[in-house]
Amino acid sequence: MESLMNSAEEQQPSSPPGNSWSKQEEINKNETPKCVGGFVLVHAGAGYHSESKAKEYKHVCKRACQRAVDRLKAGALAAEAVAAALVELEDSPFTNAGMGSNLNLSGEIECDASIMDGKSLHYGAVGAISGIKNPVLVANRLLSEAQKGKLSAGRIPPCFLVGRGAHDWAVGHGIPPCPSEKMATKFSLSAYKRNKRKMALAEKMDTGHNHAKKRRQSSETENGSGCLDTVGAVVVDSEGNVAAAVSSGGLAMKHPGRVGQAAHYGCGCWAENAFNNPYSTAVSTSGCGEHLIRTMLARECSAALQSEDAHKALLEAMQNKFISSPFLAAEDRVLGGVIVLRCCRCVESPPSQNIQGILVEFLWSHTTESMCVGYMSAQDSKAKTHISRLPPGTVPGQCLAIEGGVCRLSVAE
Amino acid sequence: MESLMNSAEEQQPSSPPGNSWSKQEEINKNETPKCVGGFVLVHAGAGYHSESKAKEYKHVCKRACQRAVDRLKAGALAAEAVAAALVELEDSPFTNAGMGSNLNLSGEIECDASIMDGKSLHYGAVGAISGIKNPVLVANRLLSEAQKGKLSAGRIPPCFLVGRGAHDWAVGHGIPPCPSEKMATKFSLSAYKRNKRKMALAEKMDTGHNHAKKRRQSSETENGSGCLDTVGAVVVDSEGNVAAAVSSGGLAMKHPGRVGQAAHYGCGCWAENAFNNPYSTAVSTSGCGEHLIRTMLARECSAALQSEDAHKALLEAMQNKFISSPFLAAEDRVLGGVIVLRCCRCVESPPSQNIQGILVEFLWSHTTESMCVGYMSAQDSKAKTHISRLPPGTVPGQCLAIEGGVCRLSVAE
Repeated sequence: MESLMNSAEEQQPSSPPGNSWSKQEEINKNETPKCVGGFVLVHAGAGYHSESKAKEYKHVCKRACQRAVDRLKAGALAAEAVAAALVELEDSPFTNAGMGSNLNLSGEIECDASIMDGKSLHYGAVGAISGIKNPVLVANRLLSEAQKGKLSAGRIPPCFLVGRGAHDWAVGHGIPPCPSEKMATKFSLSAYKRNKRKMALAEKMDTGHNHAKKRRQSSETENGSGCLDTVGAVVVDSEGNVAAAVSSGGLAMKHPGRVGQAAHYGCGCWAENAFNNPYSTAVSTSGCGEHLIRTMLARECSAALQSEDAHKALLEAMQNKFISSPFLAAEDRVLGGVIVLRCCRCVESPPSQNIQGILVEFLWSHTTESMCVGYMSAQDSKAKTHISRLPPGTVPGQCLAIEGGVCRLSVAE
Repeated sequence: MESLMNSAEEQQPSSPPGNSWSKQEEINKNETPKCVGGFVLVHAGAGYHSESKAKEYKHVCKRACQRAVDRLKAGALAAEAVAAALVELEDSPFTNAGMGSNLNLSGEIECDASIMDGKSLHYGAVGAISGIKNPVLVANRLLSEAQKGKLSAGRIPPCFLVGRGAHDWAVGHGIPPCPSEKMATKFSLSAYKRNKRKMALAEKMDTGHNHAKKRRQSSETENGSGCLDTVGAVVVDSEGNVAAAVSSGGLAMKHPGRVGQAAHYGCGCWAENAFNNPYSTAVSTSGCGEHLIRTMLARECSAALQSEDAHKALLEAMQNKFISSPFLAAEDRVLGGVIVLRCCRCVESPPSQNIQGILVEFLWSHTTESMCVGYMSAQDSKAKTHISRLPPGTVPGQCLAIEGGVCRLSVAE
């Protein structure tokens, strides 16, 4: 696997990772030979990762990649593999998803998660769900139930369930409940207490001030200072199918019932096999939920990635559809990150034999200070991990970093 | 106001309603003179409207138009007027929104609603909310709270709340609760009992059959046979701002916690002032929620309406992005409807004076058997209402009807 690492401010785009191949290599897609295993790219949040936290985040990314690759090697399709990666990311107490999620204003954990399968174009999501260790498994079960067709009496199966109803549906479908108190960690509980104090202080400072001032004052919760550790993954399997998933505990001190981008169709993740397009694409987003919702960032990135130069397309999408989006004109800083992959069939050498492999381009980009990613193909012995950081001196929320690589999946012998 | 009524199969598009003017008429948009009042288009559901029901549906559409126009005449902006129309539609016991909503599998009412303001591009939504008479007012309040900026301690205000949390937020913001039993009607309760019997029968028939057969059997709930009475409205105000809203009780016998398109960003409604585009657009959708979600129909229609011929654009969007969408390839019938408006500044006569009015094109299209609409400009003394029906012999879910009209808002003297 080649990989290309370069941070870039928006004004200084790096050379595209896709330079080593051209679209002419793409040939008849009707033949779908199996390639070796597949490829996975994961992230453990776009935010601020101190050096002390970096090791833990890298570890969990590594384990998540390995889990997905294990499934791919066992013949799983992309959706199953991406869900497996998410389970590992959710199980880490360090990420803001599943175990150790942020607590809401009432001190409860309510999670969002979604998954999209590029082959069937089906989608499953849960919002504000409590008492389930792995929300992504509920989203995945909704997806697979919807693929089976109608329910009794012609009822259409749901693709999105929230709150208590989502919890009860999950338990009714064999997903075990988990007592909420077991999902909180020492870290999430102490962050909750600190945030409570900050809010009390902010509201005290407000006494005698007007409402507008209160809304703009500077004492921020820990989300404001950069802990946006939503997790996500994108996968391509040995048949060239793509899938994407995302999971989040949401913003710290959010109002109960608040649903973020991780459960919003087109906003948290997107996956679409090529069909009539040149490329199959998969995207997962992280960051400030409301910004990612209103810009529908996952779907925008997916659409942008159909143009020839993937790196340029993602750079422009992050610049024009996110940082400078008219939907966020009133925001002083726009915080988020994405991981993307796109792939197409390509001719293996020697070209005369016309054997098709899969060329995978993968990228990540973020406007937050840092983003922790991991990636691995089934041909690799272990995952590579990396903490991407904004170039020194740049302003989070106004500038971006973009990096990526290329991987070629060979035809299985 | 001119109006053009013609049902058309997809193969027989009618002549576009926009023929009477050309884009050259559009001039400098930076000047924003006030026009008289504004314009509203509402609908009371895309489904099947018997002649006996038609009268009630027309009445409620008429009242909803009048409510919006009253607000517009009083100087309200589009978002406030569209919310006023929705309140009237929700209050009708005949529509599947607010009062008289469908009951879910547990015999409870859980509503979805959303609103989008084309001027600020802000959006508010509630999902699976119980015990609130007018869910659209909660969505509208979320929208207006988000427009005020950050909460205390730098927290970002939510744009989407669900379930119990949404209810509590609403009550905390002064929206009165309504006992759930008061929201059910004789009609919704008797429909629930009939559906319960149908489900029991369907499951009894299934005894001894395999699971696949169960999922395809034909005894359908009342949603299957056409009661999809989600409501919606689109508005342009005297300054040319657009807004759209949607509200729904969701599918009958849905699983508790299921959220449909009415609460999904980009799926239930969309509104976008012109900014860098030629036209301001507003869209509201109705029908089978999961189909409208997966095709993101509101946003797709809005994007399509930027091309020159509005009628052709909507026809193609309904055909290519809905009926024949690759996202719904496995569906045998795709049920839904939309109301849309688009507008741009145009020169009033005599052109030499360069006075700008607003040209409003409005359309509705549906693949369901019928759709009940009403529309009114502030210059009209009363609303026009109409039950649009598929042409005889066509198949619901596979063919469509499309109709519309044009209205010119003159500059206020």
